[in-house]
Amino acid sequence: MVNTISQQELQWAHQHWMTANYLAAAAIYLRDNFLLEEPLKPNHIKDSLLGHWGTCPGINFVYTHLNLIATKHKQSILLLTGPGHGFAAVLANQYIEGSLSQYYPEMTPDRPGLGNLIKAFCWPEGFPSHLNPGVPGCIHEGGELGYALGTAFGAAFDNPDLLVACIVGDGEAETGPTATAWHSTKFLNPRTDGAVLPIVHLNGYKISNPTIYSTMTDAELKSLFVGYGYEPRFVGPDHKEMAQAMEWAHQQITKIQHAARKGKPISRPKWPMLIMRTPKGWSGIKQLHKQKIEGSYRSHQVPGKDCKTNHESLSAVEEWLRSYKPHQLFPDGAIPEKTLTFVPKGDLRIGSNPHALGGNLRKQLVLPDPKTFEIKFSRPGTTLGASTPVLGQYLKHILIHNADKHHFRIFSPDELASNKLDAVLELTTKRYLWPQTEKDPHISPDGAVMEMLSEHTLQSWIQGYILTGRYGIFPSYEAFLPIVDSMVSQYMKFIELSAKYRWRTPVSSLNYVLTSVCWRQDHNGFSHQNPGF
Amino acid sequence: MVNTISQQELQWAHQHWMTANYLAAAAIYLRDNFLLEEPLKPNHIKDSLLGHWGTCPGINFVYTHLNLIATKHKQSILLLTGPGHGFAAVLANQYIEGSLSQYYPEMTPDRPGLGNLIKAFCWPEGFPSHLNPGVPGCIHEGGELGYALGTAFGAAFDNPDLLVACIVGDGEAETGPTATAWHSTKFLNPRTDGAVLPIVHLNGYKISNPTIYSTMTDAELKSLFVGYGYEPRFVGPDHKEMAQAMEWAHQQITKIQHAARKGKPISRPKWPMLIMRTPKGWSGIKQLHKQKIEGSYRSHQVPGKDCKTNHESLSAVEEWLRSYKPHQLFPDGAIPEKTLTFVPKGDLRIGSNPHALGGNLRKQLVLPDPKTFEIKFSRPGTTLGASTPVLGQYLKHILIHNADKHHFRIFSPDELASNKLDAVLELTTKRYLWPQTEKDPHISPDGAVMEMLSEHTLQSWIQGYILTGRYGIFPSYEAFLPIVDSMVSQYMKFIELSAKYRWRTPVSSLNYVLTSVCWRQDHNGFSHQNPGF
Ligand SMILES: Cc1ncc(C[n+]2csc(CCOP(=O)(O)OP(=O)(O)O)c2C)c(N)n1
Ligand SMILES: Cc1ncc(C[n+]2csc(CCOP(=O)(O)OP(=O)(O)O)c2C)c(N)n1
Repeated sequence: MVNTISQQELQWAHQHWMTANYLAAAAIYLRDNFLLEEPLKPNHIKDSLLGHWGTCPGINFVYTHLNLIATKHKQSILLLTGPGHGFAAVLANQYIEGSLSQYYPEMTPDRPGLGNLIKAFCWPEGFPSHLNPGVPGCIHEGGELGYALGTAFGAAFDNPDLLVACIVGDGEAETGPTATAWHSTKFLNPRTDGAVLPIVHLNGYKISNPTIYSTMTDAELKSLFVGYGYEPRFVGPDHKEMAQAMEWAHQQITKIQHAARKGKPISRPKWPMLIMRTPKGWSGIKQLHKQKIEGSYRSHQVPGKDCKTNHESLSAVEEWLRSYKPHQLFPDGAIPEKTLTFVPKGDLRIGSNPHALGGNLRKQLVLPDPKTFEIKFSRPGTTLGASTPVLGQYLKHILIHNADKHHFRIFSPDELASNKLDAVLELTTKRYLWPQTEKDPHISPDGAVMEMLSEHTLQSWIQGYILTGRYGIFPSYEAFLPIVDSMVSQYMKFIELSAKYRWRTPVSSLNYVLTSVCWRQDHNGFSHQNPGF
Repeated sequence: MVNTISQQELQWAHQHWMTANYLAAAAIYLRDNFLLEEPLKPNHIKDSLLGHWGTCPGINFVYTHLNLIATKHKQSILLLTGPGHGFAAVLANQYIEGSLSQYYPEMTPDRPGLGNLIKAFCWPEGFPSHLNPGVPGCIHEGGELGYALGTAFGAAFDNPDLLVACIVGDGEAETGPTATAWHSTKFLNPRTDGAVLPIVHLNGYKISNPTIYSTMTDAELKSLFVGYGYEPRFVGPDHKEMAQAMEWAHQQITKIQHAARKGKPISRPKWPMLIMRTPKGWSGIKQLHKQKIEGSYRSHQVPGKDCKTNHESLSAVEEWLRSYKPHQLFPDGAIPEKTLTFVPKGDLRIGSNPHALGGNLRKQLVLPDPKTFEIKFSRPGTTLGASTPVLGQYLKHILIHNADKHHFRIFSPDELASNKLDAVLELTTKRYLWPQTEKDPHISPDGAVMEMLSEHTLQSWIQGYILTGRYGIFPSYEAFLPIVDSMVSQYMKFIELSAKYRWRTPVSSLNYVLTSVCWRQDHNGFSHQNPGF
């Protein structure tokens, strides 16, 4: 049975959510009069209105209820926000829980700090409009949509105590990388890995279109996710429903993990996932200039964007912001203790999850001496050798030297054997959780090799794995690595920006091995020649 | 009720399939003794054994049964083979039906022609190992896996009489682009478009691993595809089952199309798709060197690859090839009339489908005079204008001028409005078939704008559309076009190779509009700056 949710918890949840909503909304619009202590005037409005409101209330909703789980179960939670354009929501929550002020001392939990926060969003020298390495708790920017889910699994591998919650936009769910990353549970070992809790944010709209998921019936959505291997549960915009769904999900995860950890793993476990329906721009402006705003794509970015010059828009924004009753949310300009009741403390704060600053957790990778793998020959031209089998031996020895640390993995698109790296299989296996038709001794739930025919999934897995302080290598035919060109650019930007923040200790490098290079691909022909990476 | 399949048809199917299997297998191994009229000797074996046997018998199985449909229903069928490494099978079928000899006169339907065919596969100056523009009937190479399904839909748009059959490998099905392309039916108009019949080739293995689909239960697979919106049907390695399934699929398609064309469209039509289970390397070597070959990943490429030097392998290959009884399949070295009974003629031959040589079908695109769209100004610095709204007007007029031709589409990742191209919506709509929660006048089943949040799907749609002789434009934020970098490289290689064949009349260009370029993306920040495309 699922824990019952108390009235106190529900009241808290609403209060917390409203607080985060106010902060996110205010951050998008206000450069002054942060608590609306005076009537709202054009000069209180920022000159350039950026950020994206539409997805924020949903993110806040998730954050509130994850806080409840974190506090009640002392559960370590890392949050990945697919729609990184909802940064204002994450920022609001990191301010509330105090993870932000660890690195931005001016973000104090008082009137001046609150003003600093609201003003700093999309402001010169302040924060940008999208999630970024400049805040703690973040291993995924969500600028280029599609990679949150795979990255979440990468973070969960070999982190048995971690719960990685992952918000997937229903727009984002249309991307190819997301559509196949759902299969990742088949590679997740409940005994030795953490869990991923995917939350599809079904707010119905993208930038200016309904999403595909919004045109599917509940039965179809359910069928889809059951097909992928999940146990989906629908949640509406209701705190009680959400709190119960979160409890249920947490319980399902615990059940699957306990069984596996007691040596009685559940076959083909049905991991929980949530399909959360909320109106886009929930709690925002209902209607403006005779057009529907809340529950429409018109909430996607900045509703009433002309509020600095248009009086009707300004009133609508003011009315909306006042609807949160800021004077009650922030008496004396500070967040009252009551709002913090179920906000976790210390490392349990989602924004302070240690795994997000993977460099701090990283242990030394023990490397074998490369000299040991030398191909010996007496005279040039007398010995025939190839490079990748030797690399295979080297990798095998990395695995031997690091066996107890569980922090090194090989990610390969079904090409390990083809790339002649299969010496590693003398020691480890390819990891797969579900039973196969025919027993293959080289496949087991414990393997260090991750093989899936999706370069996108591998790339997001390895990103999540490395950013949380581990090591990996991605061998691939040279011709097909350009598939992840754009992902790699985005990843490199994340690393480049991270270097700006001293508190982000560097993570390890992401290693590629390009095999079957252009001129060795005469046999497969032109389509297998693409030296662009 | 589904048409019954006659004994004659079944016998023919088996005979046809065996013929294609022999030809495909022989093409992989033999440089001589093509009909095994003498005992097989090492010098009859090609020096370098390329090509991929594993997927060939399944492709042949599909081809045989598509032939039956084409002949019986006079149905125009274009075939896309996801696993392009099964080229030997396509080649065999194009030889049998005679489409090959239209362009390769030496591929005569007699003993010398048969020898020419077998020898030419993976032979200097002959054919490569993968599908390529050097053969007719081909608009998709299938070298880089993942794009067949989306391309199939692109070919079907605005081709109401066409059936595009698409073989999707169960390995290929793991790729992101394929995993989301399934949603394409929601953009397919049964009144004005052709149909796509996806056939998942569930042969259980990839290069050296079981596929994910092979570890899913029938119930899960069914659930997945019902979730995507299809009516899936399982087919085993049995001619009767397959013939019935094909009849059923054809009938379902006809039903959906007739309803729509009579003005009574079925809401959310469940398009048929087949999940075809065959053993990998079906009908090939069962066991060799004490290892299972048929029904295993060991069939993926060239079973008994050491047959030029290893006697046991050579015997196994010989026994296998003789099991097809080549002397019966090719009396006097030619394919008997009986084997051709249900092989379609003329343009109904799959390899001769006119849509595959789109350049021949292409009609002139009527373009408006760009001068008409000039932004007039009296003195520099007096008028404010932007480029994309003007382009929007221009595109609108292209649509006006070509209204009756239905050969121009705009493919956009939910960014039409954001890119200020929405002038086109004064004339047309965004196309979507399924009902939306809220009526949006800019969305309808007839629109010329295709918006989906999947750059991969858009890229494969536009490729399929253009290669079949139509026109398209793909506007996108500059930052996110690198998502399709590798697809574009592969596409350009297809176009480059096509130019080598005079009979491949050029198709139109694939037009990109890069918007929100690097320095205009200050508001969305670093993640939205990626000028690499
Ligand atoms: C790969 C990619 N293509 C296009 C965009 C442009 N874009 C930004 S937000 C958005 C819509 C996202 O919708 P959804 O994921 O549902 O997020 P939400 O509605 O919660 O904001 C699009 C298409 C992008 N960020 N990434
Ligand atoms: C994107 C991509 N990654 C990797 C490969 C290498 N590769 C060639 S064939 C193959 C397995 C394909 O399996 P499947 O689609 O099931 O085809 P089949 O079993 O029918 O041969 C792989 C991984 C590729 N061609 N494309």
